[in-house]
Amino acid sequence: MVAVNADVERQTASVDLLVDLGAADMDGVNALISARMQSPVAVIPALADHLINAGGKRLRPLLTVAAARLAGSTTDGCLKLAAAVEFIHTATLLHDDVIDSSQLRRGKVAAHLIWGAPSSVLVGDYLFARSFELMVEAGSLRALDILAKAAGVISEGEVLQLTRAHDLNLSKDVYLEIIRAKTAELFAAAAEAGAVSAGASEEQTRAMRSYGMNLGLAFQLSDDSLDYGGTTEALGKNAGDDFREGKATLPLLLAIAATGAQEAAFWERTIGRREQDDADFLRARELIKVTGAGQATLDMAHDFAAEAKEALSCMPAGDWRQALEELADFAVTRSA
Amino acid sequence: MVAVNADVERQTASVDLLVDLGAADMDGVNALISARMQSPVAVIPALADHLINAGGKRLRPLLTVAAARLAGSTTDGCLKLAAAVEFIHTATLLHDDVIDSSQLRRGKVAAHLIWGAPSSVLVGDYLFARSFELMVEAGSLRALDILAKAAGVISEGEVLQLTRAHDLNLSKDVYLEIIRAKTAELFAAAAEAGAVSAGASEEQTRAMRSYGMNLGLAFQLSDDSLDYGGTTEALGKNAGDDFREGKATLPLLLAIAATGAQEAAFWERTIGRREQDDADFLRARELIKVTGAGQATLDMAHDFAAEAKEALSCMPAGDWRQALEELADFAVTRSA
Repeated sequence: MVAVNADVERQTASVDLLVDLGAADMDGVNALISARMQSPVAVIPALADHLINAGGKRLRPLLTVAAARLAGSTTDGCLKLAAAVEFIHTATLLHDDVIDSSQLRRGKVAAHLIWGAPSSVLVGDYLFARSFELMVEAGSLRALDILAKAAGVISEGEVLQLTRAHDLNLSKDVYLEIIRAKTAELFAAAAEAGAVSAGASEEQTRAMRSYGMNLGLAFQLSDDSLDYGGTTEALGKNAGDDFREGKATLPLLLAIAATGAQEAAFWERTIGRREQDDADFLRARELIKVTGAGQATLDMAHDFAAEAKEALSCMPAGDWRQALEELADFAVTRSA
Repeated sequence: MVAVNADVERQTASVDLLVDLGAADMDGVNALISARMQSPVAVIPALADHLINAGGKRLRPLLTVAAARLAGSTTDGCLKLAAAVEFIHTATLLHDDVIDSSQLRRGKVAAHLIWGAPSSVLVGDYLFARSFELMVEAGSLRALDILAKAAGVISEGEVLQLTRAHDLNLSKDVYLEIIRAKTAELFAAAAEAGAVSAGASEEQTRAMRSYGMNLGLAFQLSDDSLDYGGTTEALGKNAGDDFREGKATLPLLLAIAATGAQEAAFWERTIGRREQDDADFLRARELIKVTGAGQATLDMAHDFAAEAKEALSCMPAGDWRQALEELADFAVTRSA
């Protein structure tokens, strides 16, 4: 556990410093994002804009920018890589929402419910292609390699999740493998590509990748925990969505393991067969609380956040490093 | 019209020479395709293999190889680009079949009907990502740029088609714009990238791009015509599929324009509202025949095939050039 002095930690657990420091660079990134999602085919910018300008925090491109700043400075190429990272993320969200039949994304109606699933799939493909055009313009084959590999790992993780999504006996290790691939890999690649764009040393490049990976794991585990404890408003999606979709996330898997045979019928009905009523979510939430499964998930998130901060030790001290430390704390305290 | 001496043309209108000449290079390409579609997540190679080894002719990677051979020689990088081209094509087919709810592909049950639409979408994403990894390994930023731009144009064309698919008043120009983007662009990029990989001159690179573009248009128009005249066996999909899906292809658009007010109610019912019975396809086929719409489509395909051959005039004479000339003839005579 990390939070020795929870008050101090909480005061500085925020994205504010990073957002402030990155504002000028992100103006450039946002201009690229706006320009490159255009198309004479009107559905494309309309659909892309609906999601892209729905108020996401743009953490991933911010990581690319921050890694470059920590390792030296941002270049035109770095901003293009950052915009490419956001396009990869957006493409993934569009396809995810089709696959999960999600209703809500970033507090708005999911795009496929407005423009249809076919348009969401194709606009995702379009943004994915545009991301590679941006990477080519950035001109670094090594950064291209990092992000192309990440894109492969992400879809591999998504398929793994799809085939194991409702498995009540999913092991903690396989679960971590899934979120490492589908979530943390892009954080890792975003930070690594930023470091590479600034000509960072191998040690610093590895450090930024490790920071991104651990940060991504901390965020995802915290999200998984929030889904059983947070509010719809704080999440930008409906609290309890994971349960209603029967998704085997860590809080659930730990609670299933802890309650054993006693609750087997309940889990089999609600997750295995997805036969649920409203009271079932409240009962699941209670079981996750009393078995300590929610706390154990958060503890693990805290450990990854600590590892993320530890990875920064070889980077120069200063505002940017502090901003990334605060981001790691934010990843796990927004649930508090 | 091209076929002055139809007998001679038909004897040599074939992919055989190209397949023979390219056999050794394609062994390398096929080995790459097999190796790079692997994944520890079992659904991925199973689904990819179902489509990739269903007996497609691999014309696009063959174009990459042929362009490199015409401009000099094939390198390890060229074979990787060729494999990447086939992966982009495969990813597109997987997403297309989900979007069109197609039943059949290359004579086999479409993948989404076996593994589900979500897996088809995600495995498409995976192959798309793997294609960019291969391109990075090939090491040519210019070839990467060509293929990344092509991928963007393809999805843009698919969205345009999706939004205009059942438009009875679609102009010939917009129709050609759609097939240029969704089909011909990848043929063009495949040939152009192959030329670039062999260090071709700018003139030769432009020539190979032009060959690919015109060949792609000839193939698509010939396909569109075959759908109203060919057999299910020859097509590897059901003849009449375009009509049943209400797709506004050129033979249909020309017939609609030619029959005018007289048949407006028939077209509005069968294409606009897609209310059809079996006799309707036979009537549409007859109208396409008697108005000359089918022949006009084929004539246009012949013109593009002639332009494709003309583009080869600046390339060195010899077996490879002859093979590409025969391929252009094949594109338009397989309907005969």
